[in-house]
Amino acid sequence: MAKKLKRIGVMTSGGDSPGMNAAIRAVVRTCAYYHTECAGFYRGFQGMIDGDCINMNARSVRNIVNQGGTILQSARSKQFLTKEGRAQAAQNLKEQEVDAMILIGGDGTFRGGQVFSQEHGIPVIGVPGTIDNDIYGTHYTIGYDTALNTVVEAIDKIRDTASSHNRLFFVEVMGRDAGFIALNSGIGAGAEEILIPEEDLGLDRLLDSLERSRRAGKTSSIVVVSEGDKIGKNVFELAEYVKENLPFYDARVSVLGHIQRGGRPSCFDRVLASRLSVKAVELLLDGKKDLMVGMLNNEIESCSLDQALKGKHTINKDLLRISEILST
Amino acid sequence: MAKKLKRIGVMTSGGDSPGMNAAIRAVVRTCAYYHTECAGFYRGFQGMIDGDCINMNARSVRNIVNQGGTILQSARSKQFLTKEGRAQAAQNLKEQEVDAMILIGGDGTFRGGQVFSQEHGIPVIGVPGTIDNDIYGTHYTIGYDTALNTVVEAIDKIRDTASSHNRLFFVEVMGRDAGFIALNSGIGAGAEEILIPEEDLGLDRLLDSLERSRRAGKTSSIVVVSEGDKIGKNVFELAEYVKENLPFYDARVSVLGHIQRGGRPSCFDRVLASRLSVKAVELLLDGKKDLMVGMLNNEIESCSLDQALKGKHTINKDLLRISEILST
Amino acid sequence: MAKKLKRIGVMTSGGDSPGMNAAIRAVVRTCAYYHTECAGFYRGFQGMIDGDCINMNARSVRNIVNQGGTILQSARSKQFLTKEGRAQAAQNLKEQEVDAMILIGGDGTFRGGQVFSQEHGIPVIGVPGTIDNDIYGTHYTIGYDTALNTVVEAIDKIRDTASSHNRLFFVEVMGRDAGFIALNSGIGAGAEEILIPEEDLGLDRLLDSLERSRRAGKTSSIVVVSEGDKIGKNVFELAEYVKENLPFYDARVSVLGHIQRGGRPSCFDRVLASRLSVKAVELLLDGKKDLMVGMLNNEIESCSLDQALKGKHTINKDLLRISEILST
Amino acid sequence: MAKKLKRIGVMTSGGDSPGMNAAIRAVVRTCAYYHTECAGFYRGFQGMIDGDCINMNARSVRNIVNQGGTILQSARSKQFLTKEGRAQAAQNLKEQEVDAMILIGGDGTFRGGQVFSQEHGIPVIGVPGTIDNDIYGTHYTIGYDTALNTVVEAIDKIRDTASSHNRLFFVEVMGRDAGFIALNSGIGAGAEEILIPEEDLGLDRLLDSLERSRRAGKTSSIVVVSEGDKIGKNVFELAEYVKENLPFYDARVSVLGHIQRGGRPSCFDRVLASRLSVKAVELLLDGKKDLMVGMLNNEIESCSLDQALKGKHTINKDLLRISEILST
Repeated sequence: MAKKLKRIGVMTSGGDSPGMNAAIRAVVRTCAYYHTECAGFYRGFQGMIDGDCINMNARSVRNIVNQGGTILQSARSKQFLTKEGRAQAAQNLKEQEVDAMILIGGDGTFRGGQVFSQEHGIPVIGVPGTIDNDIYGTHYTIGYDTALNTVVEAIDKIRDTASSHNRLFFVEVMGRDAGFIALNSGIGAGAEEILIPEEDLGLDRLLDSLERSRRAGKTSSIVVVSEGDKIGKNVFELAEYVKENLPFYDARVSVLGHIQRGGRPSCFDRVLASRLSVKAVELLLDGKKDLMVGMLNNEIESCSLDQALKGKHTINKDLLRISEILST
Repeated sequence: MAKKLKRIGVMTSGGDSPGMNAAIRAVVRTCAYYHTECAGFYRGFQGMIDGDCINMNARSVRNIVNQGGTILQSARSKQFLTKEGRAQAAQNLKEQEVDAMILIGGDGTFRGGQVFSQEHGIPVIGVPGTIDNDIYGTHYTIGYDTALNTVVEAIDKIRDTASSHNRLFFVEVMGRDAGFIALNSGIGAGAEEILIPEEDLGLDRLLDSLERSRRAGKTSSIVVVSEGDKIGKNVFELAEYVKENLPFYDARVSVLGHIQRGGRPSCFDRVLASRLSVKAVELLLDGKKDLMVGMLNNEIESCSLDQALKGKHTINKDLLRISEILST
Repeated sequence: MAKKLKRIGVMTSGGDSPGMNAAIRAVVRTCAYYHTECAGFYRGFQGMIDGDCINMNARSVRNIVNQGGTILQSARSKQFLTKEGRAQAAQNLKEQEVDAMILIGGDGTFRGGQVFSQEHGIPVIGVPGTIDNDIYGTHYTIGYDTALNTVVEAIDKIRDTASSHNRLFFVEVMGRDAGFIALNSGIGAGAEEILIPEEDLGLDRLLDSLERSRRAGKTSSIVVVSEGDKIGKNVFELAEYVKENLPFYDARVSVLGHIQRGGRPSCFDRVLASRLSVKAVELLLDGKKDLMVGMLNNEIESCSLDQALKGKHTINKDLLRISEILST
Repeated sequence: MAKKLKRIGVMTSGGDSPGMNAAIRAVVRTCAYYHTECAGFYRGFQGMIDGDCINMNARSVRNIVNQGGTILQSARSKQFLTKEGRAQAAQNLKEQEVDAMILIGGDGTFRGGQVFSQEHGIPVIGVPGTIDNDIYGTHYTIGYDTALNTVVEAIDKIRDTASSHNRLFFVEVMGRDAGFIALNSGIGAGAEEILIPEEDLGLDRLLDSLERSRRAGKTSSIVVVSEGDKIGKNVFELAEYVKENLPFYDARVSVLGHIQRGGRPSCFDRVLASRLSVKAVELLLDGKKDLMVGMLNNEIESCSLDQALKGKHTINKDLLRISEILST
């Protein structure tokens, strides 16, 4: 084991995701287990710059494993994008005797952490926490599984209404650059069509498919649309376009929005957050740095932050085929 | 008991609401219990016009007590607004030997039913089913309690994110003409402000209140806004207005939309639907007509459709006071 | 308004129920609104005896409106049953300058409070919080509505299995002396039979009914049994008895147990808790004492603790009739 | 592609699990997609023996993707354990022109299927559906993820009460031979101790751990116990034992029981069921037989039924270590 770390800091950054609290809890308890101090920084990088932190022990994280959001709060920090901001943060860590940081967040968080570590020699480990699942080096990010359940539960409710009124619903889900949520929740909710940023299926194909659906006797339908779908229209324009071209459809729109970020984490996310965070602390205690922990093939692994940032986690395109078969 | 009814029809009309299936089930089973036939008409008045109906028995309604939506589907019928449409419907009922109708729906449904009964002498009984709770003659409509739970669960999720990011959220809920959902879900979700159609609190008051909140150290807030709030701005304009005037707030919008109509009914709605519908059948069998059943003071009562349509179910304004006290 | 109260105490006692936190929050915020201090006592009467309390302000109760359990904890205190114990509690209240108490709990809590008030002249107001709904002077107690939803959700799950395997399930729910939970959740869950403490339907009738059910083609059934049912057998003995007498049934038992006490409160319970607690504080500030607040006919009312303790909240027996009709 | 299959049969067998309906739906729709007929057999092997089956098409499986249980029902068949029973089943399949079977279930189901295939040359493919996750050849079985969520939600509720009353709860979860559910739900629910069939931690260690917990200031605790734990006492005896030895604990028991089998499937289980079942049909159409499909490392794979039956899916013992660290 390398030079003994006295004190490990932890923060959450970027969009919050369910399971971040379970991750914080696991960091804090693992530190306690290994008799290492732990400091929690509020509002991500901004708290590091402002020196806004508290000592955390096993009791600080009682009864949070099942809470959505993050007790350490999150924020985006423009100041941390500057050299001065980062220097200020490094200065604070030194004053607080924090030897290393665990960063729970997504791409932007890891990018900031990497620069920070390089400039100031403070080891960081990234823990992937985002509902978008768009991080290379892990099959699952913390919060993604919960978001999928939130989305399918919402679509189940919408389908009650769609079936009762013979309506076509366009449901917009999160995922500006990645179709993970749309693709999996679409299959889970039995959507008739799924539109994702990775594939432009074309408007014609959508119309064809809906018309075929109608002829097959389906009177209600759900189309799941990723925020960032490639089709070049937002979800309201899409609905209008379909109404004009397929007037027999009573098309409606539902934008699920921020409910997708909150809520009690699923068991999967709680266990994932716990396992990743125990590993993150152990890596630091083991003298490792600038890594991201991830779950690959059900095992907890790690890769360099550099790999995580350069790689691209791509969707499984076979799921599009599955979706097509199932909406027969 | 009056002239024995041979066959009772049942339909659902207007916006669907959770518990309509429990109501259909109770109508069907009560008919079976009293050895009376039952016919279910699809898509409300339109199904009556089209003669689109099925015989229903105890088995037809198995395992639906807990399902959202309505197995008989719902629709708005322009044709039923015409004398010819209604005559066609009456003709069909006669051919099908349906002696009386139970109409599950809201104001529009009851208005149609009343005219229909007057023109064609076919007794109708209304069962109030709508999430809006805006029906006179009953303290609760079927679906309202479930919608409230759906809304507070959604706002609980949004609060996770609001707290994590120090944000102000404007959450739009259903209720074009009535603030029941906004007022009760707002108190239930601990909203800092509630805007409803019945009261114009004024934009200045909203700004004042939010500024006071901020000064008191609250960094995140939820404002629940009824679709039809009186303040003269939609929820997006409201958020913009606040951002301009209170720039320290990171204001966001969430429109809950159609998820409010669906979902498994709460126990309250299932029991309410069951009790109202048993009563509706018993009233018909007792020779009564043109009534609406309702729950007043925990008892099942009835009033004339006329009263139900002319009266106005007003919100309890004391709840606004409660809300103000609790957002101290 | 009477002699100005300087400081109001609040505690929770007896079995915990969902919504108790919403009640505590409303007490604390109403005190703040009226510029009155508020002290929270831990573990009910025991905390009063031990002087275990904290000052509470609007911030102390942030983000608890949606949490199950009670942040003030609950306990049963044998010591409070003694004159000495109560004298000690009174002494502590005086030292802490607490002028009056709000007691959130059930019958036992109110009984203790009444004796305490009479002996020591310290005004108390009771707020009915128990899942059992067995309190006179209110149509609903805090936590009851949530417990009903928890029970019907659990039975919905059990019905999935019952239907898949053609099984008969005996589901035991809480309610040692009162059948409120069994009766309402039984109707809500579509149970074939409901056994409650208030009625001994007899084992023969149960067998008859199950046999009739079977002949009518029902292959799976749910029987909801109150803990304290009158039939003289516990739920396991009941299942055995039925297996012996109706061997074609594959009878199973599920005891729902403590999950019924916990969970996020429903909107109904949150609003109820809020309204009752605002009223409780206002009554104290108004110079009133030894009352219980309750909701009757949708309005918040109060009655003397004496009435609440002497009266009996009886189930609506018409619901048994409804249940029989619906299990046709 | 091999000899064209005319008609594929599908059934569910063994304990039902959430997601079985999603699997049935995927089998039926994939058959439709490939223009192959599909027959659904009721009550597992028993339905094959009784010839109790229906034709299924895309519409037969509408709106079931989100339903718990199995529309084809399940049962254990003693008759199928006999040569005569299996011969009868084979005879029926021939008469019904069913060329191959897809069997959704667990170990017992696959064992029966393997013998049947060997005796009668009718190809079978197994799809792992059981909440226990104890099947070799797949990291996840259908229903397991949902059961984990059901368990953690139940324990969340119990913790509300445990925290409010300073109680120790022993919560029994399913898993007679395998600790998957206990181990993962225990970590997810933040249990202080987890007892599983795979490890005998010893009663002394349990007492030590609880005493340490108590000294560390924890006043409430959750111990998750697998039905089949090795410790040689059932959950009630365990609670008694602890009460005798650690009398400061107010120990209670909750047996979660059958609610673990039911409920709406999680998104994970719906997608898993869909992917596995599409693959199962495609393997048959491809001329394959006597395989089980599974998900390994996020990819859909297959292995021989023989391997699936001979192998053992073992728990990840590192999770015990994680649990110990987190209950610090």
